[in-house]
Amino acid sequence: MPSNMISTKFLEKAVLPLDVIAPHVKTEVYSNSAARTSVLRNPNMEKLQKGYLFPEISMKHEAHMKKYPDAKVISLGIGDTTEPIPRVITSAMAEYALALSTPEGYQGYGPEQGQMNLRKVIAEKVYPSMGIKESEVFISDGAQCDIARLQTLFGPNVSIAVQDPTFPGYVDNGVIVGQTGAADESGKYAGIAYMRCAPENHFFPDLSRVPRTDVIFFCSPNNPTGHAASHAQLRDLVDFASRNGSIIVFDTAYAWYLSESESADGSSSSSKPRSIYEVPGAREVAIEISSFSKFAGFTGVRLGWAVVPSELRYADGSPVARDFDRVVCTCFNGASSVAQAGGVACLSTEEGRDAVRRVVGVYKENARVLVETFASLGKEVYGGQDSPYVWVRFPGRRSWDVFAEILEKTHVITVPGSGFGPGGEGFVRVSAFNSRERVLEAAARLRKFLA
Amino acid sequence: MPSNMISTKFLEKAVLPLDVIAPHVKTEVYSNSAARTSVLRNPNMEKLQKGYLFPEISMKHEAHMKKYPDAKVISLGIGDTTEPIPRVITSAMAEYALALSTPEGYQGYGPEQGQMNLRKVIAEKVYPSMGIKESEVFISDGAQCDIARLQTLFGPNVSIAVQDPTFPGYVDNGVIVGQTGAADESGKYAGIAYMRCAPENHFFPDLSRVPRTDVIFFCSPNNPTGHAASHAQLRDLVDFASRNGSIIVFDTAYAWYLSESESADGSSSSSKPRSIYEVPGAREVAIEISSFSKFAGFTGVRLGWAVVPSELRYADGSPVARDFDRVVCTCFNGASSVAQAGGVACLSTEEGRDAVRRVVGVYKENARVLVETFASLGKEVYGGQDSPYVWVRFPGRRSWDVFAEILEKTHVITVPGSGFGPGGEGFVRVSAFNSRERVLEAAARLRKFLA
Repeated sequence: MPSNMISTKFLEKAVLPLDVIAPHVKTEVYSNSAARTSVLRNPNMEKLQKGYLFPEISMKHEAHMKKYPDAKVISLGIGDTTEPIPRVITSAMAEYALALSTPEGYQGYGPEQGQMNLRKVIAEKVYPSMGIKESEVFISDGAQCDIARLQTLFGPNVSIAVQDPTFPGYVDNGVIVGQTGAADESGKYAGIAYMRCAPENHFFPDLSRVPRTDVIFFCSPNNPTGHAASHAQLRDLVDFASRNGSIIVFDTAYAWYLSESESADGSSSSSKPRSIYEVPGAREVAIEISSFSKFAGFTGVRLGWAVVPSELRYADGSPVARDFDRVVCTCFNGASSVAQAGGVACLSTEEGRDAVRRVVGVYKENARVLVETFASLGKEVYGGQDSPYVWVRFPGRRSWDVFAEILEKTHVITVPGSGFGPGGEGFVRVSAFNSRERVLEAAARLRKFLA
Repeated sequence: MPSNMISTKFLEKAVLPLDVIAPHVKTEVYSNSAARTSVLRNPNMEKLQKGYLFPEISMKHEAHMKKYPDAKVISLGIGDTTEPIPRVITSAMAEYALALSTPEGYQGYGPEQGQMNLRKVIAEKVYPSMGIKESEVFISDGAQCDIARLQTLFGPNVSIAVQDPTFPGYVDNGVIVGQTGAADESGKYAGIAYMRCAPENHFFPDLSRVPRTDVIFFCSPNNPTGHAASHAQLRDLVDFASRNGSIIVFDTAYAWYLSESESADGSSSSSKPRSIYEVPGAREVAIEISSFSKFAGFTGVRLGWAVVPSELRYADGSPVARDFDRVVCTCFNGASSVAQAGGVACLSTEEGRDAVRRVVGVYKENARVLVETFASLGKEVYGGQDSPYVWVRFPGRRSWDVFAEILEKTHVITVPGSGFGPGGEGFVRVSAFNSRERVLEAAARLRKFLA
């Protein structure tokens, strides 16, 4: 065990020289003597200078470790899973891999859209009674990659709306394909509708004040606030999209963290929708993206999916699924077949589903500990109930200052809320993705710091 | 063994209804009664109607099997590997997967740019003495995906040149990001410089007649012609790019198929460059992309890499690597960690490297058989020497007609050359990716057909 308690791979991300990964901390003037091509830099990439969140955290972490070489730093920062993957799943991957050495088990290219058995089990087990057909499920290498492909699909001419705060990938990929103007001082890009989600509106936007956009990205349970939209709220969202002729991209990467409530008859059922397709009319207006990363620990294995219902049509009546299929076939070549074998093992048997539920339970208990820690000290704390993220308000303070102070005093890494959009200013996100032991240790240090 | 000799997964690709995957074979009028959003279809996607090659082949294959249900169809079509992966490689993947179930072996997110041990072994083993640093190697989920990310990086404002014929991914991804106008009747997109590569110019473009473009995609050994550029030709290409201030994207997915020649001292060495970085000055003008698909049988496992040297700069002097790193971190989240473990096993030991060389040898012998078959019948045949693809000319005929006639008379699937660009008209591509038994059977049928 090294003297610091954080994996070196978190640091390994910062492998390029500083001027390459974080030019905005240096001057932008390049030597005239260096050879250069005549190719103009993509102006959309230039707009992206701001808000490169995780490398900035990584650099501050490095600087901290130089200052305190013996500190036992605990990361409750990046949402990276830490619990081992249940054996029933890794055995399936190992078996699949070994079979690739046999004539019977060898498989070359799979379908770009994914193996039919995986598409089928997702349609059946994740979307029971929701009318999702296996042909509408497109297997991917993760939700972030699907966001990029969806933004490629929509192209530069669409307008988008995002929750504020939310996962930065929707906006960043929109900037890259040219959907926006430049960012202002607060970090808001021109051309994007930011839907404020704050304690004051119970983390659901006031849709009467949201302008019409072509596409609405909506993450529930939300990263970073941890808020999960109710049935009534999602009905409003679907109605809003239907009236406006918009497309919702609904991100359910954290759906497995939804807490279940007891029905009157004693059977347990989720109190919040796990899918946008629980809402009538969603098939005509919504794409759903999801991932095995956070419920099965596949952050490194890479597996996710997108659902594009056949009813979803552009203004000219042509199916969105047709163009998405083309993007998948042209820009992608399918998720790793070994990862797909693992995905089938997660979902196809009760044993697999129970195993991943137990892992999710570990993180949910961590989240409960963190919520309790902050609440017991009188902090304004949100999330953690239906999500692995705890969202803590520090009124009147800047997120980065709070981040720095927590790191300095407790050696605990969090994420400044402003990294998720201007609406996150004054908050920090605390992740439940770590071992119980480290979460308890972090909670003890935080109690001392906040007392 | 089913009555047809082709894997069903080839057919499984055509999972969407016909009007979704191949609208151009149907009318484009959609019912007015269907619900539709107000979102305008991405005009760049509309330009892509033509040239959706492999699904068209797949449909013709299906139609053929309906007509001849008992035919033993042999696919020498899509370049899909068929030989099992050597055990030394799959064992490493299995071991890695199983370790994910242990606290010591579990890994969440890896670096988006890839595991450092894999980047290092690629720098050392694939680019010996070429000055490529591990930090310049970006691990990917395959060359096609890197092409998409590179086109996202360059954006809509760059001009591009491609070999004609060549792998369609360069052009298709350029169309999707908006680099082109519409296609003409021959399939050429406005705004792209097509560099004719034909027997008449020994499959190397006459650069004095190629206009300057920002980016030059160049595949060597080329898919589909099988031609590998010589040192002198690549020096010319690098000089051309340097003079014009262009960026070369050099695709070496088939470099392991280069035949070695004996030196005077008896040591064997490749007679053609395996990498653009064997050419002086290439670091200032060239990106290289490559893949484990065709040399290690990783078509389904998904693993590749891109090299972006730190000297490569935009006109403003800023490093291309910096923006590519940002694209990799924003649009991607790293290749599957299990696949990366397999990649290390391919390259890090002599045992792994020998094992993949033996597999490549199987396909090279298949290619030799196919070349000999066509040559012995007096056909004009190219490729197959430094490539798994054999490129056969049928003067005065249309590629699709030859494809149809071969399928009708021999039940062998090839690929019409025109699918790789207008310069491929009059040719068919015959792939060596199949078992020896089936290649010999196909060769026997082709001899009979061509006699």
